[in-house]
Amino acid sequence: MTKAATPNAPDVVRSAYAQLVVTDIARARWFWADMLGFHIQYEDDATLCLRGMDELTHHSLVLRQGDTPALDHLAYRVRTPDDVDKAESYFHSLGRPTRRIKAGDGTPGIGDAVRVIDPLGFPVEFFYEIDHAERLIQRYDLHHGAEIARLDHFNICTPDIPAAYAHYENLGFGCSETIEGDEHELYAAWMYRKQTVHDVAFTGGAGPRLHHIGVATHESHNVLRTADIFGALHKERHIERGPGRHGVSNAFYVYLRDPDGHRVEIYTSDYYTGDPDHQTYRWNVHDDRRRDFWGNAVIESWYKEATPVLDLDDKPQPVTDAVLDESAVAVGADGLG
Amino acid sequence: MTKAATPNAPDVVRSAYAQLVVTDIARARWFWADMLGFHIQYEDDATLCLRGMDELTHHSLVLRQGDTPALDHLAYRVRTPDDVDKAESYFHSLGRPTRRIKAGDGTPGIGDAVRVIDPLGFPVEFFYEIDHAERLIQRYDLHHGAEIARLDHFNICTPDIPAAYAHYENLGFGCSETIEGDEHELYAAWMYRKQTVHDVAFTGGAGPRLHHIGVATHESHNVLRTADIFGALHKERHIERGPGRHGVSNAFYVYLRDPDGHRVEIYTSDYYTGDPDHQTYRWNVHDDRRRDFWGNAVIESWYKEATPVLDLDDKPQPVTDAVLDESAVAVGADGLG
Amino acid sequence: MTKAATPNAPDVVRSAYAQLVVTDIARARWFWADMLGFHIQYEDDATLCLRGMDELTHHSLVLRQGDTPALDHLAYRVRTPDDVDKAESYFHSLGRPTRRIKAGDGTPGIGDAVRVIDPLGFPVEFFYEIDHAERLIQRYDLHHGAEIARLDHFNICTPDIPAAYAHYENLGFGCSETIEGDEHELYAAWMYRKQTVHDVAFTGGAGPRLHHIGVATHESHNVLRTADIFGALHKERHIERGPGRHGVSNAFYVYLRDPDGHRVEIYTSDYYTGDPDHQTYRWNVHDDRRRDFWGNAVIESWYKEATPVLDLDDKPQPVTDAVLDESAVAVGADGLG
Amino acid sequence: MTKAATPNAPDVVRSAYAQLVVTDIARARWFWADMLGFHIQYEDDATLCLRGMDELTHHSLVLRQGDTPALDHLAYRVRTPDDVDKAESYFHSLGRPTRRIKAGDGTPGIGDAVRVIDPLGFPVEFFYEIDHAERLIQRYDLHHGAEIARLDHFNICTPDIPAAYAHYENLGFGCSETIEGDEHELYAAWMYRKQTVHDVAFTGGAGPRLHHIGVATHESHNVLRTADIFGALHKERHIERGPGRHGVSNAFYVYLRDPDGHRVEIYTSDYYTGDPDHQTYRWNVHDDRRRDFWGNAVIESWYKEATPVLDLDDKPQPVTDAVLDESAVAVGADGLG
Repeated sequence: MTKAATPNAPDVVRSAYAQLVVTDIARARWFWADMLGFHIQYEDDATLCLRGMDELTHHSLVLRQGDTPALDHLAYRVRTPDDVDKAESYFHSLGRPTRRIKAGDGTPGIGDAVRVIDPLGFPVEFFYEIDHAERLIQRYDLHHGAEIARLDHFNICTPDIPAAYAHYENLGFGCSETIEGDEHELYAAWMYRKQTVHDVAFTGGAGPRLHHIGVATHESHNVLRTADIFGALHKERHIERGPGRHGVSNAFYVYLRDPDGHRVEIYTSDYYTGDPDHQTYRWNVHDDRRRDFWGNAVIESWYKEATPVLDLDDKPQPVTDAVLDESAVAVGADGLG
Repeated sequence: MTKAATPNAPDVVRSAYAQLVVTDIARARWFWADMLGFHIQYEDDATLCLRGMDELTHHSLVLRQGDTPALDHLAYRVRTPDDVDKAESYFHSLGRPTRRIKAGDGTPGIGDAVRVIDPLGFPVEFFYEIDHAERLIQRYDLHHGAEIARLDHFNICTPDIPAAYAHYENLGFGCSETIEGDEHELYAAWMYRKQTVHDVAFTGGAGPRLHHIGVATHESHNVLRTADIFGALHKERHIERGPGRHGVSNAFYVYLRDPDGHRVEIYTSDYYTGDPDHQTYRWNVHDDRRRDFWGNAVIESWYKEATPVLDLDDKPQPVTDAVLDESAVAVGADGLG
Repeated sequence: MTKAATPNAPDVVRSAYAQLVVTDIARARWFWADMLGFHIQYEDDATLCLRGMDELTHHSLVLRQGDTPALDHLAYRVRTPDDVDKAESYFHSLGRPTRRIKAGDGTPGIGDAVRVIDPLGFPVEFFYEIDHAERLIQRYDLHHGAEIARLDHFNICTPDIPAAYAHYENLGFGCSETIEGDEHELYAAWMYRKQTVHDVAFTGGAGPRLHHIGVATHESHNVLRTADIFGALHKERHIERGPGRHGVSNAFYVYLRDPDGHRVEIYTSDYYTGDPDHQTYRWNVHDDRRRDFWGNAVIESWYKEATPVLDLDDKPQPVTDAVLDESAVAVGADGLG
Repeated sequence: MTKAATPNAPDVVRSAYAQLVVTDIARARWFWADMLGFHIQYEDDATLCLRGMDELTHHSLVLRQGDTPALDHLAYRVRTPDDVDKAESYFHSLGRPTRRIKAGDGTPGIGDAVRVIDPLGFPVEFFYEIDHAERLIQRYDLHHGAEIARLDHFNICTPDIPAAYAHYENLGFGCSETIEGDEHELYAAWMYRKQTVHDVAFTGGAGPRLHHIGVATHESHNVLRTADIFGALHKERHIERGPGRHGVSNAFYVYLRDPDGHRVEIYTSDYYTGDPDHQTYRWNVHDDRRRDFWGNAVIESWYKEATPVLDLDDKPQPVTDAVLDESAVAVGADGLG
């Protein structure tokens, strides 16, 4: 059952885009556009705005050239222009840094927006206006690579999962699934606004860091094909984990690392969560199917490595270590303890 | 762009279930449960409550024994218990017949509800309370047949498409796609509350009649397998149209007829429609890809045959002929004129 | 059970390539290479040599520019160089025209060969030597379109099916499946040398004409994708029949027509036939699943239209009408009578 | 290029069946028939004869109750009844133990046969006669689990790969692929008679032991489904390795262990090898894609564990250690050194 949002919280529609700093825009273009099949909506010397083939708005991923790989910001779309103001005052009232971005001053294609450092230390943008884009859903002649359909979710590393849960619950997010210890201590949670398993998930670990962005493709064979293409070019080192079936979410997945080490999950098939009394499904941390439904071990780098995040002045945010460590729970094939 | 609902309209969450009258419950059980893979949630001598493997509520299809094949009613879930009252007063204010159904008096698993004859002549129930059901999403050992995941939509025959459009727009439904003539006269429309292409669609034709219910499965191979199983048992006459790719919705589909002639569409893959400014995509009636993206002809029975509907006293509703006839638009392979 | 070949018959390994006359090589290149995904192994102003991604020899399809669409010749690979001589003397002994082609004088990539007009009136080449080609099986980065893996079979129209059967039986071909009337009169037959359902099949009708070439892809979704790409470019008129499941062979298929009207079948999944006592499976012509396992009607053009064939001097071969007409057998959805 | 078989060697058609000793026939039945979808052709208290859905002969797997898990024998079908005699004299001339088995005295469904202990120490049967079985290829209503289509191959552990290679080359087997060191020392080889990548493969290691039997299914989603069903029942410990893509053979696979530890590979998609000059493709042992095209590590048990084999008197054959150890070649993710 979704708790009502805090009354003054903005009405979030969905996870909308991530903006990443990459150190070599040409290599990033190869990875994200040529290999994964993102459509290039806008491109200049230092910027790429990309979208999936089913997306009808300007972008769901922005890559900008920079010196150090980092997350510039995550962005959520809100329901009305007023919700942008509401986001500003909400985070201001929480004592968090906020900054208004006028249309044209920020990310291409985005109108008026506000950027904040949220209570978890992440740089997050809230916007309503975004340029519409040509429908490519049925342009099968252009589909290639992983045939990315749309952004699905963000996954963030944060040392205090209950705090992350509370923050997003206050923003009106529902919780579809969790990983919990025997005493219901929270190891991970999956939370949503749109009617899928998640818009954001939390992986316990040193944070704030970006664990991965998850992008949806339509069928399992698209996931397999992605891995096959990397193998074909002897670039299999970009494949970090999978393909496999998640216990949590039931999605079929593969995790890749881009040339800067940013992690992306190619993800297909989850389930509807839009009913008002949708209930949280709770996995025990000792069920070795939680992370891989087939019991395959999770590789250590997947638990340990993540992308640093910037503050509103493009400085790296400091990182705090986690208290609970899911990867230390040695169960079956899984666990690295 | 979704128009705001009429202020006193109930807040509809989604298409929730259809209740059909079948003349031989055993044969219906074979078709829907054995062949299509619906899970039997409740069963007595005269009733079957069925759900898809991803559904977490009591049923999305009810079959009850009767003398003549018919639609007993369609049902929408609303957001709160108060929306049931709101639905009653809303349809009362429209001058339509309404009837309250107490929990236990109506369909098994459903709480307090109201049934109405809507302005289009269809029997429609609005309810909030429904029993929760065991999660079977990952019970792959039980999946079989078409591996139905969930109800996706209703498709109804109605002679006056603009009237149907206006009625559902007043209920707050958005419109994802249409088929229109050269002067934008409306031949068909697809409308949604949940974040898919539709909860309800209108096929021009004599009405009120039920054209089909659409049920979702996860991948294209599940659709192919469905047809293969009917062929294997020499029951291929149940396959009416397809498998094929829709122009509208981009879904991959097959249409089947149950032993009473009720039509069901096995449907997979559409796209997200949850953004507040989601725009309608308009097909011209002369584009022969609108009904089948590969240009295959639509069989005549698909345009002409449909299920009669009952009133609140189980009497057949009278049927009115249509003004516009999409099937008379002879275009390419399609069109039957 | 495969009858022993006539003792002096050449030892045929498999159907190897078809050489077609096309009237616009650039349009043909678009269809076969860009759209279907054949790999271009050799190309000059008037010739294209194409192969599937799994093929390890020079080509399985040759397109040459000419004035009128036609089949130039079909080609079978034989087991040894001596079998080329054996083919020459075999057809000579049958009183059929033969012509030796020296390496370099005939089709690029092919060594010494003999071309004959076989007893059915078809131009057929037998060769042993063919250039090897780079392995592309795992070059997933190059796979696109229909992702053609290899040539699977030829399908030819001939008015006298028993004569065709006898001719190929004398060449040592086994018979996997037939379509037969109630008195076992033969409407169609599928015959093989390699261990698949067929290298050649006979469709009753005016002949000699080429009905289609069949090319294999790996999975059903590759067939669906082929049709989707044609729809995407509004070139759906190239799709003639299907996608569908064959009764005969159990393959999943789609039939396309190239810009000159040559028919190609994209074909996936049949079964092993290599056992020495493999038995013929016989379909009754009244089983409406024989041509489409789901009972969908066969479109009339599929029965009536085919590619003319040339003689050894590039003159069109005269055509004789059929005695039996399968398409006149009106059964269920199928049949055009 | 396939070397000619030794003149007095029997003409082998294909790998035909494996007979395994299992310690609990009911548990074995659950695993192989219920879970994997093998069809039960014959069953008594101590024996199960199983076949895949595409197989037209009596069985491709026999399970017999016994005290200790073991391989009873592998079996190859030969081209004629005379080849059974030829097999007997061939192995006799090699100084190997042979034993004639009259129809009815040996495995159900098999006619006259000879069993031998081959030069590698494996118990191997050669037979021609086998009962035909009802065609189930299109009985999609019966397909379930992994939807096994047919036996594909045997994989055996043997300490001396060149000796194994020479033995099978003498039997007329071609070699499709190898894994070789920098000096072309042979780590593994894949050899065939039927026109697929292999009927038998050799994994370096202590031997004679059976590494696994490989069974074919039609599409990748069947492999994924197999793993999903084991996960669903919390029996994921039966999944040992994969799903993944092989470098060698290009097949998509998953390895499972049955309740007695016998290993089975569910395998889909390889390529045609039937041309007379088909050439061997050689992988370097340092290419980390050879065992998994995506670079995923091979789990240690896969290299180390295997099934003991019996002699003609049901006594365990002694085992010899290997000289070369592929698993000691630490390359990338792979290698366990």
